[in-house]
Amino acid sequence: MAKGLFTKILVPVDFSPCSVEAFRTALSLAEVTQADVLLIHVIDTTALDAFNRLGLLAVPSDTAAQKRRLRHHARLNVRQLLESVSASSVTVGRMILEGAPFVEIAKTTRAEKVDLVVMGSYGGRADRMDKIFFGSTAEKVVRTAGCPVLTVPLPGKTSR
Amino acid sequence: MAKGLFTKILVPVDFSPCSVEAFRTALSLAEVTQADVLLIHVIDTTALDAFNRLGLLAVPSDTAAQKRRLRHHARLNVRQLLESVSASSVTVGRMILEGAPFVEIAKTTRAEKVDLVVMGSYGGRADRMDKIFFGSTAEKVVRTAGCPVLTVPLPGKTSR
Amino acid sequence: MAKGLFTKILVPVDFSPCSVEAFRTALSLAEVTQADVLLIHVIDTTALDAFNRLGLLAVPSDTAAQKRRLRHHARLNVRQLLESVSASSVTVGRMILEGAPFVEIAKTTRAEKVDLVVMGSYGGRADRMDKIFFGSTAEKVVRTAGCPVLTVPLPGKTSR
Amino acid sequence: MAKGLFTKILVPVDFSPCSVEAFRTALSLAEVTQADVLLIHVIDTTALDAFNRLGLLAVPSDTAAQKRRLRHHARLNVRQLLESVSASSVTVGRMILEGAPFVEIAKTTRAEKVDLVVMGSYGGRADRMDKIFFGSTAEKVVRTAGCPVLTVPLPGKTSR
Repeated sequence: MAKGLFTKILVPVDFSPCSVEAFRTALSLAEVTQADVLLIHVIDTTALDAFNRLGLLAVPSDTAAQKRRLRHHARLNVRQLLESVSASSVTVGRMILEGAPFVEIAKTTRAEKVDLVVMGSYGGRADRMDKIFFGSTAEKVVRTAGCPVLTVPLPGKTSR
Repeated sequence: MAKGLFTKILVPVDFSPCSVEAFRTALSLAEVTQADVLLIHVIDTTALDAFNRLGLLAVPSDTAAQKRRLRHHARLNVRQLLESVSASSVTVGRMILEGAPFVEIAKTTRAEKVDLVVMGSYGGRADRMDKIFFGSTAEKVVRTAGCPVLTVPLPGKTSR
Repeated sequence: MAKGLFTKILVPVDFSPCSVEAFRTALSLAEVTQADVLLIHVIDTTALDAFNRLGLLAVPSDTAAQKRRLRHHARLNVRQLLESVSASSVTVGRMILEGAPFVEIAKTTRAEKVDLVVMGSYGGRADRMDKIFFGSTAEKVVRTAGCPVLTVPLPGKTSR
Repeated sequence: MAKGLFTKILVPVDFSPCSVEAFRTALSLAEVTQADVLLIHVIDTTALDAFNRLGLLAVPSDTAAQKRRLRHHARLNVRQLLESVSASSVTVGRMILEGAPFVEIAKTTRAEKVDLVVMGSYGGRADRMDKIFFGSTAEKVVRTAGCPVLTVPLPGKTSR
């Protein structure tokens, strides 16, 4: 009956507890609105490139091996995340992308005609002091997505 | 059937087109999740006080009259907004508060056990150049609300 | 001897303690670098317009009187601020503008070939809870000025 | 003559062109104010840890080797940066730290009684689209440093 409220929900995940919570919320929302879900993970190659410039690589030729490992683990993590949620009637697509997370999210939102983005407020790097800062990826997505964005805080914060 | 996903949805409005759009989205969401909606408007007395310090008042005794006028118009605007939406099955409460908007929104979220805030990304002050900036009230609410926050962009941006 | 490090320093003030501190810091810097200082105050007409839309005005014709009062007080405040600083060898220009503060600051920076902006981190509206947020005008100026920006915190914070 | 305006200037660098520009500006300022400069580089171990959780490491025991390499390169980069600036009368200290950059910068500011931080507005990860966003480390430092912060934009932007 709420068909049409949302038709395609994008959920960018970095596998942090906060992004897993966002994925669960997205599935519930998709169920009541009969929307499809598109799960994406963006391998942050801009950060990786920065690290490599700072000396992370033992030998420069390692760069291909690095990305292969990250892609492999991303696929495993996405599969594990999809298996962790109980079977629902929601259609879930998946994509693994490489680049600057917020740029790829904004592009995918437009290319896939997404009408809602659901994402964790904080990424995997949030330490205690960092919690006073809004996750910079979420903030950038809100500014650039061009569609409604639902930010979901760290699990447990909701009921506080 | 989606009962429990959200039970109380807070919608802070400043009567800008963007906040009216957020209110409509909140009503649709409330319908499918069988949630109640709480519509609030916060009279930004911190900004008003700043203006008065800078010389806005003709005579200092005007301050009570100023606030009376703003309260009166807030009541009218809220009533008009509620009448503008077609009759739905959703229960809508209303509150008019005074203070710093994001502080009052964060307080109300906790006091009223709100589990979703829906608000416009941009307030009534957004000019062209300002659009590259995420509305500072929305940003502060995402950081401080402690519950999921759905930000809704300017009407028409959704389909772009 | 440090001639050329900075030649024209822009100081936007809102007459808050923080902006007065920024003005003092700018004068000290101007002295050692032999730069000129340009003091500006922007009457935030976008906020005033928002208030008027919300019912601040008793009668619509008051709008001209409002702006006259704000301009008059801005001139008084600027004069008082200039008199409060002890006579120095620094040349200080002054301008009173109207519009959205960060837009006018960015425009003036380019039009006047400013090579340093010095401003308070927090404006006159900072309450306790607001202090965890970087003043949104300062933040926007850092993003848009196109030249170095020195942000000065609330007086007394420096020595902490 | 401007002794006392600043006594200790902290310059966090990530070796991006923008941070090198900030270092040059800091040296010029230190010269006219007779301040000391403290150059620091923070190895972003929170980002590294995130990458390792996502599968960057071939074998878990590599983590020590990773950090050794990053430390070694940081020392080389700092030395090279110090050699690149023409001999000046300014005393420059150096520190290499590990952790979340803005947290280590805020701690060092307090521990070393720094009275000015000079840093690039954008870090090494700024791509074209990212330029509309203020570098998140710089933004966090402005909010947490508790002392004046001079942000320096990408080289070449100054003269625009």
